[in-house]
Amino acid sequence: MKRIAGAMLLTLGVCVAQESGDFQPAATNVWGAEYPRVDKSLRAQFRVNAPNAAKVQVNFWSAPKLDLAKQPDGFWTGTTPPLVPGFHYYTLLIDGAEVTDINSHTFFGGGKDASGIEIPEAGSTYYLPQNVPHGQVRENWYYSKVTGSWRHALVYTPPDYDTRASARYPVLYLQHGGGEDETGWTKQAHANFILDNLLASGSCKPMIVVMAYGYARRAGQPLPDLTGKPFGSPEMMRAMQEMAAAFEDDMTEVLIPYIDSNFRTIADRDHRAMAGLSMGGMQTFQVTFNHLDLFSWIGGFSGAAGPLVLGNEKLDPKTAFNGALADPAAFSKRVHLLWVGVGTEEPARMREGLLRLHASLDEAKIRHVFYESPGTSHEWQTWRRDLKDFAPRLFQPAAH
Amino acid sequence: MKRIAGAMLLTLGVCVAQESGDFQPAATNVWGAEYPRVDKSLRAQFRVNAPNAAKVQVNFWSAPKLDLAKQPDGFWTGTTPPLVPGFHYYTLLIDGAEVTDINSHTFFGGGKDASGIEIPEAGSTYYLPQNVPHGQVRENWYYSKVTGSWRHALVYTPPDYDTRASARYPVLYLQHGGGEDETGWTKQAHANFILDNLLASGSCKPMIVVMAYGYARRAGQPLPDLTGKPFGSPEMMRAMQEMAAAFEDDMTEVLIPYIDSNFRTIADRDHRAMAGLSMGGMQTFQVTFNHLDLFSWIGGFSGAAGPLVLGNEKLDPKTAFNGALADPAAFSKRVHLLWVGVGTEEPARMREGLLRLHASLDEAKIRHVFYESPGTSHEWQTWRRDLKDFAPRLFQPAAH
Repeated sequence: MKRIAGAMLLTLGVCVAQESGDFQPAATNVWGAEYPRVDKSLRAQFRVNAPNAAKVQVNFWSAPKLDLAKQPDGFWTGTTPPLVPGFHYYTLLIDGAEVTDINSHTFFGGGKDASGIEIPEAGSTYYLPQNVPHGQVRENWYYSKVTGSWRHALVYTPPDYDTRASARYPVLYLQHGGGEDETGWTKQAHANFILDNLLASGSCKPMIVVMAYGYARRAGQPLPDLTGKPFGSPEMMRAMQEMAAAFEDDMTEVLIPYIDSNFRTIADRDHRAMAGLSMGGMQTFQVTFNHLDLFSWIGGFSGAAGPLVLGNEKLDPKTAFNGALADPAAFSKRVHLLWVGVGTEEPARMREGLLRLHASLDEAKIRHVFYESPGTSHEWQTWRRDLKDFAPRLFQPAAH
Repeated sequence: MKRIAGAMLLTLGVCVAQESGDFQPAATNVWGAEYPRVDKSLRAQFRVNAPNAAKVQVNFWSAPKLDLAKQPDGFWTGTTPPLVPGFHYYTLLIDGAEVTDINSHTFFGGGKDASGIEIPEAGSTYYLPQNVPHGQVRENWYYSKVTGSWRHALVYTPPDYDTRASARYPVLYLQHGGGEDETGWTKQAHANFILDNLLASGSCKPMIVVMAYGYARRAGQPLPDLTGKPFGSPEMMRAMQEMAAAFEDDMTEVLIPYIDSNFRTIADRDHRAMAGLSMGGMQTFQVTFNHLDLFSWIGGFSGAAGPLVLGNEKLDPKTAFNGALADPAAFSKRVHLLWVGVGTEEPARMREGLLRLHASLDEAKIRHVFYESPGTSHEWQTWRRDLKDFAPRLFQPAAH
């Protein structure tokens, strides 16, 4: 009873008053957790209860590690320099153990339920819940004959979906990055609120957004044994190609028919888009370029074209993507939108690769949009901005 | 790229082969995590990488703490005695810091995203995903004039909801416990799969299930200042009553009208049920007994009647619940189902209180179902069984 009452009271915001100055608890915290907290200059302050630990660090994935200092009360504290606005993954390192901070909600990334901290961006409300009509996010389970398993997909339906019972909608397939899963676009990026807000301001068409689980192994395919095989070995590259092919088949042979049967879609290529971030961008290029009969709107967010971006190759339109670009005029007529984005602070290899892709597309006179997110790296703030720029361009007659 | 590829490969199940004997990774693990793992005798084995720690424990909430022992390789390992089947929350204690295990998915309980481990129950498939049609779980945001905020509710729709476009459905409102939130019934308990399976075997009526956020503070109400007030103080009890009243008003004045406007419900008391576990059971009794014009099917799972259960009071039908039970015959005619459940291993105070409630109801000749979950305590396996027994009784003409 005491435990229950305590939990109830926590939600009332009851807590011992603390000197917080300018600092406010992060939006990503669980109820009642005063730390981590963020001030107006975007510094993040941490406080971790670890009375018997010898070393405690905050392990950011897109910022330097922060060493915490032990206080007389057994708590470890520390404050970062100002951080880039947006969502940042982190874990704690306590005496060498990588663990999750119980003050934070968790977000699936890096193959684990990691902690995260939201740093507000002044003036940016486009990804926050506003007083506008809200769509639903629906969990769907579908059986895939490709993988021989039940698979999970989240589907955003726009606010008027249930009231306009005979309306049909175009569809955007929107993929997460490597190490993440189908929950990332809504939990980390608030894609549902981004769409709600764009719709409310009349900036984009109502659309269904499908966020699928981005990994697949073909039914009956044995686990690859890569023991002793180095990174980049032929065996490893083959395993990755097999996974990518299984994902492509699941999406085109199972998921798209499932969505078209279970939602009121406009089931043709003029009304079907695909985009993804990082690994999801590579998947987008593979799936769409191999199936231009299914897709006509294409977005690559920080990871468009796989080896073309990450290697040192220059795009050869004659041969790239199995020749899909061989006739630039025909391609530009057939594909209503080819959209490529990158953050200005992304790691050099990623950034240079995407700049090179952009230049190659220009040189080959392949119409496309190139977008740069100022001041952001390979992180969710880049991809929120990408979606905000990309979604309004979709399914517009002017693009045809 | 290396990170992305590594994450992709993890999902293929690639890992260095390890001697696991009879042990299998827990179903609640993230991909590729070999630990924690469970053997056929239901022992759980843990392995935590904490090379510089001085003490590591597994902190179960419904089983004794487990001390792990340091191995020469810097990993800490340990094995529990056989555990009760079902879902168990846990955290790790590393040198005094309470943290979450990155090998496990997280589940909101105790006011935090905690780790969890699923111990299989031999022969029980009723809460597992089967090859049957699956309903959707839909995230909904609704604006509450009671709380002055946007609130989140999950709504299960049965598999045929979108194909039988003119069908209308009865509704079960199903509440989580204290310290948990609206995600608990699907993430921890798999309520959606329980309903899918019951439906597929013809054991229950198709119904909509609404799982709402169970905490509320009235718009404009200041945060209660309970600094220095002891547990159970009048100020604290008043704060809890105010919260319970705000929840009751949000449910009856905002949520129910929202659901009836946005889903194809049968919007009358004969087709509306409410149940909840622990704190949610108390809320159920408060909301339904105060609003018998809205509800006629009532379930209390391990926490039905608040003070009546937890105090030493005997139920006085004349005065209990504002006199709702004063005329037992009329009550039993009006309420199609009054269902009370408890686990045989629950803490004595909870168990004795519910046995006393059951005896009082019998003595007052108030028709009800009393269910005991064998061998389980105040934990999700009890509540999965409760739902499996409760849901098939709902909306059946025979009960009228």
